[in-house]
Amino acid sequence: MHVDLNADMGESFGPWVMGDDETLLEIVTSANIACGAHAGDPVVMGRTMRAAVQKGVGIGAHPGFADLQGFGRRRMTLAHEEVHALVQYQVAAAIGMARGAGGQLRHVKLHGALSNMAAEDEELARHCFGAALELDADLLIVAQAATGMERAAQALGCSWAGEIFADRGYEADGRLRQRSQPGAMIEDAEEAAARVAAMLQEGAILCGDGSKIEARIDTVCLHGDTPGAIETAARIRFALETAGIDLRKL
Amino acid sequence: MHVDLNADMGESFGPWVMGDDETLLEIVTSANIACGAHAGDPVVMGRTMRAAVQKGVGIGAHPGFADLQGFGRRRMTLAHEEVHALVQYQVAAAIGMARGAGGQLRHVKLHGALSNMAAEDEELARHCFGAALELDADLLIVAQAATGMERAAQALGCSWAGEIFADRGYEADGRLRQRSQPGAMIEDAEEAAARVAAMLQEGAILCGDGSKIEARIDTVCLHGDTPGAIETAARIRFALETAGIDLRKL
Amino acid sequence: MHVDLNADMGESFGPWVMGDDETLLEIVTSANIACGAHAGDPVVMGRTMRAAVQKGVGIGAHPGFADLQGFGRRRMTLAHEEVHALVQYQVAAAIGMARGAGGQLRHVKLHGALSNMAAEDEELARHCFGAALELDADLLIVAQAATGMERAAQALGCSWAGEIFADRGYEADGRLRQRSQPGAMIEDAEEAAARVAAMLQEGAILCGDGSKIEARIDTVCLHGDTPGAIETAARIRFALETAGIDLRKL
Amino acid sequence: MHVDLNADMGESFGPWVMGDDETLLEIVTSANIACGAHAGDPVVMGRTMRAAVQKGVGIGAHPGFADLQGFGRRRMTLAHEEVHALVQYQVAAAIGMARGAGGQLRHVKLHGALSNMAAEDEELARHCFGAALELDADLLIVAQAATGMERAAQALGCSWAGEIFADRGYEADGRLRQRSQPGAMIEDAEEAAARVAAMLQEGAILCGDGSKIEARIDTVCLHGDTPGAIETAARIRFALETAGIDLRKL
Repeated sequence: MHVDLNADMGESFGPWVMGDDETLLEIVTSANIACGAHAGDPVVMGRTMRAAVQKGVGIGAHPGFADLQGFGRRRMTLAHEEVHALVQYQVAAAIGMARGAGGQLRHVKLHGALSNMAAEDEELARHCFGAALELDADLLIVAQAATGMERAAQALGCSWAGEIFADRGYEADGRLRQRSQPGAMIEDAEEAAARVAAMLQEGAILCGDGSKIEARIDTVCLHGDTPGAIETAARIRFALETAGIDLRKL
Repeated sequence: MHVDLNADMGESFGPWVMGDDETLLEIVTSANIACGAHAGDPVVMGRTMRAAVQKGVGIGAHPGFADLQGFGRRRMTLAHEEVHALVQYQVAAAIGMARGAGGQLRHVKLHGALSNMAAEDEELARHCFGAALELDADLLIVAQAATGMERAAQALGCSWAGEIFADRGYEADGRLRQRSQPGAMIEDAEEAAARVAAMLQEGAILCGDGSKIEARIDTVCLHGDTPGAIETAARIRFALETAGIDLRKL
Repeated sequence: MHVDLNADMGESFGPWVMGDDETLLEIVTSANIACGAHAGDPVVMGRTMRAAVQKGVGIGAHPGFADLQGFGRRRMTLAHEEVHALVQYQVAAAIGMARGAGGQLRHVKLHGALSNMAAEDEELARHCFGAALELDADLLIVAQAATGMERAAQALGCSWAGEIFADRGYEADGRLRQRSQPGAMIEDAEEAAARVAAMLQEGAILCGDGSKIEARIDTVCLHGDTPGAIETAARIRFALETAGIDLRKL
Repeated sequence: MHVDLNADMGESFGPWVMGDDETLLEIVTSANIACGAHAGDPVVMGRTMRAAVQKGVGIGAHPGFADLQGFGRRRMTLAHEEVHALVQYQVAAAIGMARGAGGQLRHVKLHGALSNMAAEDEELARHCFGAALELDADLLIVAQAATGMERAAQALGCSWAGEIFADRGYEADGRLRQRSQPGAMIEDAEEAAARVAAMLQEGAILCGDGSKIEARIDTVCLHGDTPGAIETAARIRFALETAGIDLRKL
């Protein structure tokens, strides 16, 4: 049994630091690197990619809405042409910056509100993923398991990876439980790791109500925005390794 | 005798239109397309590149300072790492967007204040051009003839094209005459065309004081920001063709 | 019978010009001036305000979403604290810039998607208007007649002006007909003026289906984004004056 | 003997936190609050001003270049009209936001590269300060002691406060020693406090070479960008109080 561990990175901007990417790069096998729209700037992007190359971590583009103040977490209503261009521009920048850093862009994962909207809206997901694939048909699309993203990736016939979240509870329909609800966040690292292991074993999302949704699981999302989150991420990694799960980048 | 004609394009932003790119694409053989920092946005960039592909015009990246309000015309003091990342990010985006538009990025030309500063500062020019060449060593660098840009391109050992301006007067040292000075702008299209033809024949910049500076001349910069400018550009093209000069893209 | 004529202005940005504010200032009695978020920059704002002062046109703030590329026309989901701060910041800037221009800010009118959302959502409207009124309780709130904006203004107990659109058709419930529908745009200036006169006479919105919605009408919105629009605005003004309607600023 | 202690604040942006404003507000008597151009956003600005009002700390505007990525620390060449509008817009926003927070804007202090340039260029300083004073002639201008700012404030005939830096060394001509030079930073809190006390006693800047420059000293700039800086700031305050210097806001 094997799985990839991914986390968002390169989310500093100018003088403002976010997260501890150096440490996080020791824990994950794939990095979703912000592309300068919701976070990141060209300097941060270059540094983060060089660090990822150095540590052998897989490099991914993490495009989001061009809403720096809202960190790409506020929904915006864009025309399809706008979404296509937004994603294509950011992924294009990431492909080049990865090359400039001596590496290669391997995957694409949507960020924040754009990701939430694409999970609910297969057509939107198709526009986002299609824009990326026009640049490199071999890019791996990270799709939130059992959502419109997965259907979009299948419709496009591209390589894709199914993703689950280590530290979030799921509703019976496969959606993430909203952060305001009880059971939305799984804060205990061992519990989170045990759930991940169980989902991998079952090949299914285990929902909060006890039901299962069959799903392909290739990668697990960890978080590193806070010191506590990094500690948790490290413990999840350790628990997965202890459980005999091989950590292998996408 | 042959030469390329280039002009800046894709400088609209969101709802704001600048220039008449459709018409200009009928006149020039190469387009310097804004990359979203000083002008242009991903939608504008995609549209402009598709139009250039359709009309067979050569596609170039036109990176500038990230100063939208100042249109990249205000000097900014950036560290070398910042300049490197600024240019690499924009050229990377342009390489990908060109590919998404069914074309290929062929050249890179600096914009506005960044261009003026690189003309004066060979080391700065080298950082800018080097950042682009890391992405694609075959990119053609457009260098203002007889400036630090030319020396930087030579030092990098890359393919480069020497550029003159059709409608600007030159000082005895090869610098452009400042816009506030008499003789800075050549507004008569036939006079401009005659000067270009003479410079091509001489293989030299003809300065305002009558002196000559030997220079390689591969491309001529036209302007299209105003209706009058486009009319002038068209007449310069016509006059060059009439003079038997072959217009050939870079 | 009297009414105010208002139009959006100061929507240029950096080198990009939008509309012909000089001409429009001859036609309207109140100007809604962009505040630097969806359009306008400090230089444009200052110039537009000085021109309005010089021509005796009433100065208003026209706050919108901080989405320059989308011109504030794309909906964004903001928390109430964010909306409050967004509007307060822009109105504060407008109060000061009006003073710096030798004038005084008189009214506030929301822009684009923020306006559309506030028309549908009384609570959102209350947050927007309340943020402005905290700065100056005497500001006049422009509320789209017969919408959540009107109810919000009434709930706040502030001075407000009811607004209709000269060139837009209305649905039976008082909403503007969507631009994609037939009858959404009234392009004939005389027809538009006749409708405005009739609505003023009736004290009601005249809907496309023949029904009426009683409404207070204090100001009429004109548009000036295109040369054609300015011509139409001028003819509406002339037709209203001819019909004996007094044009008086808010 | 008395003096004011000031520090920059409200420099967070969106999700990115900078400094520990809550703690710093316990130490200083005046806060220079970023206005949304080089740092700060409307939400951050509102929160910081409410906190300052609550703690009885004097509120000041801290305008800078509109260069978020560069944090306003990169020099930009602006026309005088642009500088005037840039500063007026930000101070206008600050006046209103302070009012919205239940307080009142008392002073204006320039930020970063704009401040450095104004210290060297009296005319630039006059444009900056004049733009602010047009909004409120009673605003107190904070001028770096013995620089072009001081001369500009005197020429404008406005109220002004002379400022020294607690933790920076001075050249013989009164300029701050560049950060790259030895003796530029005074890291020991007791030494910094002793220097401040000595300068207050002498009514002069004490330069690194032992010379003195007579100067009016009304306020002392502290820093709080790092945990270490806050600790140092607290110790400087304590040492000044111990030395019998009364801390009194501007």
